[in-house]
Amino acid sequence: MLTPQEAAIMQQIQTSGADFTALLLRAKDVGRLIDAEIERDMTEVEQAGLREAVTFLFEGRGKRLRPFLVLTCAQAAGGDPKDAIPPALAVEYLHNLSLIHDDMMDNSGERHGRATLHTRYGLNTALLVGDLLYSKAVEQASRVPRHAIRMVEVLATTAKKMCIGQFEDMSFERRDDLLIEDYLHMASCKTSALYSASCVCGMLAADADEPSIEALAAFGEKIGTAFQIWDDVLDLQADPLQLGKPLGLDIREGKKTLVVIHFLKTADAASRKRFLELLGKRDLNGDLPEAVALLESTASIEFARNTALRLLAEAKEHLAILPPSASRDLLHQYADFLLQRSY
Amino acid sequence: MLTPQEAAIMQQIQTSGADFTALLLRAKDVGRLIDAEIERDMTEVEQAGLREAVTFLFEGRGKRLRPFLVLTCAQAAGGDPKDAIPPALAVEYLHNLSLIHDDMMDNSGERHGRATLHTRYGLNTALLVGDLLYSKAVEQASRVPRHAIRMVEVLATTAKKMCIGQFEDMSFERRDDLLIEDYLHMASCKTSALYSASCVCGMLAADADEPSIEALAAFGEKIGTAFQIWDDVLDLQADPLQLGKPLGLDIREGKKTLVVIHFLKTADAASRKRFLELLGKRDLNGDLPEAVALLESTASIEFARNTALRLLAEAKEHLAILPPSASRDLLHQYADFLLQRSY
Repeated sequence: MLTPQEAAIMQQIQTSGADFTALLLRAKDVGRLIDAEIERDMTEVEQAGLREAVTFLFEGRGKRLRPFLVLTCAQAAGGDPKDAIPPALAVEYLHNLSLIHDDMMDNSGERHGRATLHTRYGLNTALLVGDLLYSKAVEQASRVPRHAIRMVEVLATTAKKMCIGQFEDMSFERRDDLLIEDYLHMASCKTSALYSASCVCGMLAADADEPSIEALAAFGEKIGTAFQIWDDVLDLQADPLQLGKPLGLDIREGKKTLVVIHFLKTADAASRKRFLELLGKRDLNGDLPEAVALLESTASIEFARNTALRLLAEAKEHLAILPPSASRDLLHQYADFLLQRSY
Repeated sequence: MLTPQEAAIMQQIQTSGADFTALLLRAKDVGRLIDAEIERDMTEVEQAGLREAVTFLFEGRGKRLRPFLVLTCAQAAGGDPKDAIPPALAVEYLHNLSLIHDDMMDNSGERHGRATLHTRYGLNTALLVGDLLYSKAVEQASRVPRHAIRMVEVLATTAKKMCIGQFEDMSFERRDDLLIEDYLHMASCKTSALYSASCVCGMLAADADEPSIEALAAFGEKIGTAFQIWDDVLDLQADPLQLGKPLGLDIREGKKTLVVIHFLKTADAASRKRFLELLGKRDLNGDLPEAVALLESTASIEFARNTALRLLAEAKEHLAILPPSASRDLLHQYADFLLQRSY
C-alpha cells in the first residue's frame, strides 16, 4: 500500500510527462556534446584494431545519464559547465568500463540489441579497452582545475565500490539469508556510487561549498538506489513489449533482488520453500504467474516500489540546498524521470 | 661481435657476482616491507571471496623489482624512503594488474609454478581483482604529499602505454614487415614505461629537481628495454634447466622478438622463407637448432645482445646526475643485475 505521501509522488510522476520536454532536449544536447568530446579524446588511440574497438563501443551512444548529472550539478551550483566536461568524461569512461566487465562476467552476447565488445572483438581487446578506459578516466579527472586530487580520489573510491558491489551481487546468488541492509549495501556500491560521484564531481567543478557537495552526494546516492530497485520491480510488472525482454528474467537468473529478499524474510515456510524451487529456474515460463503471486502474497513488490519512491522523495529534498534555477528544476525532473519509466 | 666497450661491460657484469650481495640483501628487506604494506592495505577488502583471491595473488611474493626502484631512487635523491612507499605500492599494483590481464589474454594456467588467478578463482573474480588493483594504485598515488597529481598522471599515462604495448605485441604476430623501431616502441610501452615510472615516482617522492627526474626516467626506460631484449635472447641461449622452461618458446609462439625482426630484415629470401616456416610451429623440437642457426647466420642474436648492452651502458650514464651514495651504487648494481642472469 502506498502511503498518502507516496501516492502523491506516484501521481505526480505519472502525470508529469509533458514536464520532461526540457529534460529530454537538454539530455540530447549533453549527449551530443559528450559524444563529440569522447571522439576527440580517443583520437590519441592510433593502433587500428584498438581504435576500431573503442569507436564501436562509443558508437552505441548510451544515454550519457551520468555526464548529464555532472554538467547539470555544476550549473545548478553556479559553475561553468565547461569545467565539468573532464569529470563528465571520467564518469562515463568508468561506467563503460563497468559495462564491458559486466558483459564479460555474464558472458552477455548483446546489450541494447548490439553485440557486446568482447563478443565482437574478443576477450583480449575487451580487456585492453577496459584498461585504457580506466586510464583515460583517471587522466580526465586529474585535469580538473583546483580539485583534481579530490576528483581522482572520488573516482578511485567509486571504482573500488563498484567492484565490491558487483562481487556482492554475484555472491548473493548462493545465499538465502540476506537482509534488506545487505541489498542496500550492494546497490549502493554497484549502482549508486557512480551516480553519487557524478554529482560530487559536478559540484567540485563548480567550487561548491561542502554542505552542498554532501547534499548532492546524498541526492545521487538515493536516486541511484531508487533506480536499481525500480529495475527490479519492472522485471516483474512492466509491459514486456515495452521492456524489450521477457518478464521475470531476474527470477530465472536466481537474482536476489530487494523483492526476493523481502519475500524470503517474511513468507511462511511453505511459500518460501516453493518460491526457492522456482528461483533460478531457467525455463520458468508457465510458472512465472505463480512466482509473482507468491511475491505479492507478502506485498514484497509493493515494499520494493515503496522503498524506491521513499528514496526518490528523500533525494529530492536534498536539492533544496541549491538556489532555485532551471538547472535545479532539471535535477528534479531527472529524479522523476528515472522512475517514470513503466518499461 | 662485441665492441671493446661492450666486451668490457659484459666482463664486468659476468664477474661482478660478489658485488650483488648488498643489492640482494636490500631487495629482501624491500620485499618484506612492501609485502607487509600490501597486506595491511588489503585488509579493507572485507568480502571473503575477494579477499582470498587478493591474498593468493600477493602470497606469490614477486620480486618487487619495481618498488625496489621507487624506494632506491627516492633515497638516492636524498628523500625519505617512507614517502616513497605509496607510489611503490601503486606501481606494484599496476604491475600485478598487468600480469593478471596478460595471463588471461594468453590463457596461461601457471606463472612461476603457481596457478594463475583466473585459473584458480575464475574469470569474474580475476576481472574484479584487476579493477580493484587499479583503484588501489590510483588511491596510493593520490596520497603522495606535494606531487600527488603528477604521480597520478604518470600512473595513468603508464597504464595507457602498457595497454598500447600489449596490443602492439599481440598484433606483431600477424606482421612480417616490422622495423626495429616498431619493436623498440612496443617494448618501451609494454615493459619500460613502468620501470621509468617507478624511477620518476621515486624522484618525485624525494622532491628531486627536473633534470634529475628526467635523467632517472631515461635510466628506467633504458634498463626496461634492455631487460626485455635480454629476455628474448635468453629464450634462445640460456641453460634450459636454469631457465625453468624449454628454449625457443618465443619461436614456437611465433613472437616477433628483436632477434626475429632483425633476422627478417637482413636474411636472404631463402633463409627468410625457411625461418617463417619454423616460426609459430608449436612442435618445433628437433628443428630448434636449425632456427637458431638461421638467426645466428645474420648475427641477429648478437645484434639483440649488443643492443641490450648498449642500452644498459647508456642507462648507467644517466645515474651520474645523482650525488655519489650507497643508493646510487645500488641502482648501478640493479642495472647490471637485470642482465647478469644467464637464465
